[in-house]
Amino acid sequence: MEHKSRNIYLKSVEFYEAIRRYREAMDEKNIREKIEVVDTKSALNRITAAPVFARDSSPNYSAAAMDGIATISEKTRGASETRPVVLDKHRDFVYINTGGVVKEPFDTVIMIEDLVEIEQDKVEIRSSASARQHIREIGEDVVKGELILPSNHVLRPMDIGALLAGKVENLEVYHKPRVGILPTGSEIIDVADSKEAGKIIDSNSYMFEGMVEESGGIPKHYPVTRDDYDLLKERILQGTKENDLFVINAGSSAGSKDFTADVIKDLGEVLIHGVAIKPGKPIILGFIENKPVIGIPGYPVSAFIDFKYFVQPIIEKLSGRKPKTEKTLKSTLARRIVSSLKHEEFVRMKVGKVGERYVATPLSRGAGVSTSLVKAEGILQIPKGLEGYDKGSVVDIHLTKEPEAVENTLVSVGSHDVVMDLLSDWLQTNRPEAGLSSAHVGSFGGILALKNRECHMAPMHILDEAKGSYNKEIIQSHFSPEEMAIVKLVKRSQGLMVQKGNPKEITGMKDLTMKGLQFVNRQRGAGTRILLDFYLRKLEISPADIEGYERVLTTHTAVAAAVANNTADAGLGVYSAAKALGVDFIPIEWEDYDLVVPRVYLKDPRILEMLDLIKEEAFKKSIGDLGGYQTDEIGQVYISEKTEEAITWQKWYPST
Amino acid sequence: MEHKSRNIYLKSVEFYEAIRRYREAMDEKNIREKIEVVDTKSALNRITAAPVFARDSSPNYSAAAMDGIATISEKTRGASETRPVVLDKHRDFVYINTGGVVKEPFDTVIMIEDLVEIEQDKVEIRSSASARQHIREIGEDVVKGELILPSNHVLRPMDIGALLAGKVENLEVYHKPRVGILPTGSEIIDVADSKEAGKIIDSNSYMFEGMVEESGGIPKHYPVTRDDYDLLKERILQGTKENDLFVINAGSSAGSKDFTADVIKDLGEVLIHGVAIKPGKPIILGFIENKPVIGIPGYPVSAFIDFKYFVQPIIEKLSGRKPKTEKTLKSTLARRIVSSLKHEEFVRMKVGKVGERYVATPLSRGAGVSTSLVKAEGILQIPKGLEGYDKGSVVDIHLTKEPEAVENTLVSVGSHDVVMDLLSDWLQTNRPEAGLSSAHVGSFGGILALKNRECHMAPMHILDEAKGSYNKEIIQSHFSPEEMAIVKLVKRSQGLMVQKGNPKEITGMKDLTMKGLQFVNRQRGAGTRILLDFYLRKLEISPADIEGYERVLTTHTAVAAAVANNTADAGLGVYSAAKALGVDFIPIEWEDYDLVVPRVYLKDPRILEMLDLIKEEAFKKSIGDLGGYQTDEIGQVYISEKTEEAITWQKWYPST
Repeated sequence: MEHKSRNIYLKSVEFYEAIRRYREAMDEKNIREKIEVVDTKSALNRITAAPVFARDSSPNYSAAAMDGIATISEKTRGASETRPVVLDKHRDFVYINTGGVVKEPFDTVIMIEDLVEIEQDKVEIRSSASARQHIREIGEDVVKGELILPSNHVLRPMDIGALLAGKVENLEVYHKPRVGILPTGSEIIDVADSKEAGKIIDSNSYMFEGMVEESGGIPKHYPVTRDDYDLLKERILQGTKENDLFVINAGSSAGSKDFTADVIKDLGEVLIHGVAIKPGKPIILGFIENKPVIGIPGYPVSAFIDFKYFVQPIIEKLSGRKPKTEKTLKSTLARRIVSSLKHEEFVRMKVGKVGERYVATPLSRGAGVSTSLVKAEGILQIPKGLEGYDKGSVVDIHLTKEPEAVENTLVSVGSHDVVMDLLSDWLQTNRPEAGLSSAHVGSFGGILALKNRECHMAPMHILDEAKGSYNKEIIQSHFSPEEMAIVKLVKRSQGLMVQKGNPKEITGMKDLTMKGLQFVNRQRGAGTRILLDFYLRKLEISPADIEGYERVLTTHTAVAAAVANNTADAGLGVYSAAKALGVDFIPIEWEDYDLVVPRVYLKDPRILEMLDLIKEEAFKKSIGDLGGYQTDEIGQVYISEKTEEAITWQKWYPST
Repeated sequence: MEHKSRNIYLKSVEFYEAIRRYREAMDEKNIREKIEVVDTKSALNRITAAPVFARDSSPNYSAAAMDGIATISEKTRGASETRPVVLDKHRDFVYINTGGVVKEPFDTVIMIEDLVEIEQDKVEIRSSASARQHIREIGEDVVKGELILPSNHVLRPMDIGALLAGKVENLEVYHKPRVGILPTGSEIIDVADSKEAGKIIDSNSYMFEGMVEESGGIPKHYPVTRDDYDLLKERILQGTKENDLFVINAGSSAGSKDFTADVIKDLGEVLIHGVAIKPGKPIILGFIENKPVIGIPGYPVSAFIDFKYFVQPIIEKLSGRKPKTEKTLKSTLARRIVSSLKHEEFVRMKVGKVGERYVATPLSRGAGVSTSLVKAEGILQIPKGLEGYDKGSVVDIHLTKEPEAVENTLVSVGSHDVVMDLLSDWLQTNRPEAGLSSAHVGSFGGILALKNRECHMAPMHILDEAKGSYNKEIIQSHFSPEEMAIVKLVKRSQGLMVQKGNPKEITGMKDLTMKGLQFVNRQRGAGTRILLDFYLRKLEISPADIEGYERVLTTHTAVAAAVANNTADAGLGVYSAAKALGVDFIPIEWEDYDLVVPRVYLKDPRILEMLDLIKEEAFKKSIGDLGGYQTDEIGQVYISEKTEEAITWQKWYPST
């Protein structure tokens, strides 16, 4: 067994140059689309590789176009209302159904509606029939030799119908390339075996399978293979022989067990190792046995980006597909995005239509956050050499969702609560044409988003320390009275989440300074952090005395998970999260978790519909089932008014 | 065996009422979508039937985010360029790869790039490492209990990746409805058995299969069944039991062998028989064993329309899909369309973007012309009670092709020649993003289309009888000199097509008046008909003396097919058509078949590209292979100019 020494640095090739060089190498090796003959009946969605001409006419005989009789036009001459003509079945006509053969001596068809059966085998007609009336002539639909479809046409259901009508039983289409996928890594396991701790579930391979199908290939999935040079060599060689294109995930980087590049070099050639993109830099573009072999890094977002920009175009080329034209949407950046000068960078973005603008906000840029791909509406590509974009810049977002979906989605930016997940699901269930796009940036992030007109609503829970009430005061201090409405959602129970059985015997806030107690906090601007700081001041506790005050997570569930997994002893959060993760809970406060909605959107039918939907009993019940919530006022809207010197809040009802 | 009497009249229910009544009956019977649990790995394109929450956090342990070492942050304190710190593998650190477990007592990760190996198992660092640096915390990607996907979400590859990362091994999705398809009719045969004459090839069932898949169902195809009441009853009952929805094609009308309605009545109930639509009127909407059973007429276009408007929405409902939002395009009608007041009518339309307008032209309205579905860009729905639309009306066309394809397509209207089929294929092969849409209305139809600005080019061959030259004179007489350009295409051999071996011993035009000789003509306005009339006048032959002068077909191939199939003895047409259909040919004339292009489009990059492409040797060769063509001048452009009193034509070259 050869053993690999650590290559600490990968040389990076520029993004477009890497694509060009690999494409040119493929052309030199004459790696290109192949053609095969398939049965027309099973050719749906295949792509014609040659023009298709009708092999026979349809119909290929003179056919009755109506139910009735086939007869001889000359015998009907002169028939009229006053001088009907009688035809005799034994001499003059045959009964015929639509599609029946019209044979000599018959040259015309009379519809059943125009006949009177006067006795057995005798019919009377009251107008003459012209020659070849109600006859489908040979070739009416398609004539032998006629072009039915040109090359490069994606076969639709109606095309298959027309081809069969023209007696085209089989046709030349592009071969669907076989794409082998090899998950590697001693730390990788299949989800079915996922009881082991310290292992990563193989999720990329299954994402790749779908992406292969999307691009017109046939995926073949190989078993997870441990970091063993010889075993990898054997599997990669076998896999390359069995496919048109082979993808190895991962081991493409420069760790001590990253064998992919060496194995490819050993079996064939590595053209490029490392491309100046982010994420996805440690990609390997090589060849074995005159077939493209590509090594892709393991982080799910890196894997997605590399597969999308390097592998999918090759599958499309090999399957004879037109290059996909990506849909882009001109969008306004809600915040500044800084990028590295050294890389072509791909940032997942949330995009929503707020007012007349499309507003785009970056999602987590962590290469490990696969859910950011799910949440994103699109991707922003920042060219190499650019430092980024300023807030307010108009940029092209490459959509990963349908434009219609982006157009109809309600955009929420603010505090996170699992109630927002339920709301998202409830809206999607009841009005599938438009969901809810929810960004979790804390309550103050919501205020900022409202100010910047980046959202239709901001969920928040901000305590006014002086008045001891929620949300109204902060709204009054940031907006003019007629600007915002408050939609009541829930009261929720905030408290300390502690480990099962409460081993540290925590009784309340005052115990957070306990020696050896690891706390986990929420990010600045989060309502829950504001609540914590309020109590700390009240109890005259200094943040510096709490171990872990600086360690922040951005959702209640993340905090609960940290406690559940023993990386923290306590954190502040809501009851529902504690219950979901099975940790203990010490209640501290019932707080108001409301939606703040610009009043201009109270006219928006999507908001009005939402106001109706959240009042439904089924929705209230699903919230109640979580525990720790009160929904007495849900759906009630409050608006403020300035009278004399005071600002008053009053109930608002949609006009009916 | 029961035998059916002829029901001459079907009662027609209004279109939208039929849809409403059938839908209501389904609701009453509680026929609705079903839910099943599937393996996440094979859930691509399935639709979630419930919200999906993460079953575990990812990562579910503290994981190294980089290749390097896991160490203890406290031991790195104070490290700097001038005072490096040495760490010992036996005491202070472990080597770790990306994804490795960071375990107590280690709390930080240092990248391989930031280390200097000073000796075996000893590394030096030159800056301190903060706690939890380069560590992926538990739940960084997804936290246990977090919403990954809402209900009614179509699963994409990245969703599958995120679900597996959240250890969601299986999930609830909507069941894919099974749709049985039964082709019936004693005249129907499978394409594989299509040697028999007087039989119709079963093409609809395979079109239906594709339409079932399009809508999210699983098609099940039953064998062609002859018109036998008892056999049909048995197959329909069995098929209904085996599926969620059953479709019978055809036998839905009122012919003597149309048993479908009676069998459904016999086994269950017929809710509606006959809907006021055109085509597709004799549809049957019924139920057997609490499942929808639908009878659809046999003409391919009727079958398509009924399946699209009645069956596909039910499949979509049963598969939990959102109703498809059809893309429509506001288009200007190139001609008047007359419709029946009594029916909702669906007309196949050609649509192209000419100048700034989308121009729509009706295709054949024959219910038997399946190729019209292939050629159409969309469908115009004319409401019941409307007499039609005037020329120039702006109407909504429901697209059956992608809007981008419509946008990029070159529109040709005029004379037909197989060279236009080759051109269409050649353009599609070389620039797949945009094809050629070609309407065959004869040379004079092309002149009209140019006048109405309905096309980018008009292929034509119009003889000027006085000068004996082609196309220039007719262009001069209809357009001002700077309006049009002539793009030379081919010279082609026109002649008489006669049966194999020339049994009637025809020698030339003068023999067309021969007793008992059946001629077949082309439509008024066709250049070939103009040529015929020119010769008849020259030879002083009266059209009345030619049997079949009034029988018209609209293409060369159709005429050749009529001769080949012995329904005519002779017709005028081009050599290539005669050769393709294997009939004999008596040459009469070499004529110029040119493209007339408005000069304004000589700037259009699509036209310029075409001008380049048609000059290529491969294209000339494919024309040459047909026989009967000369391509010496192909791609040469002529424009006219008015000088003093004469109009002169001169060569034009694209500026480079």
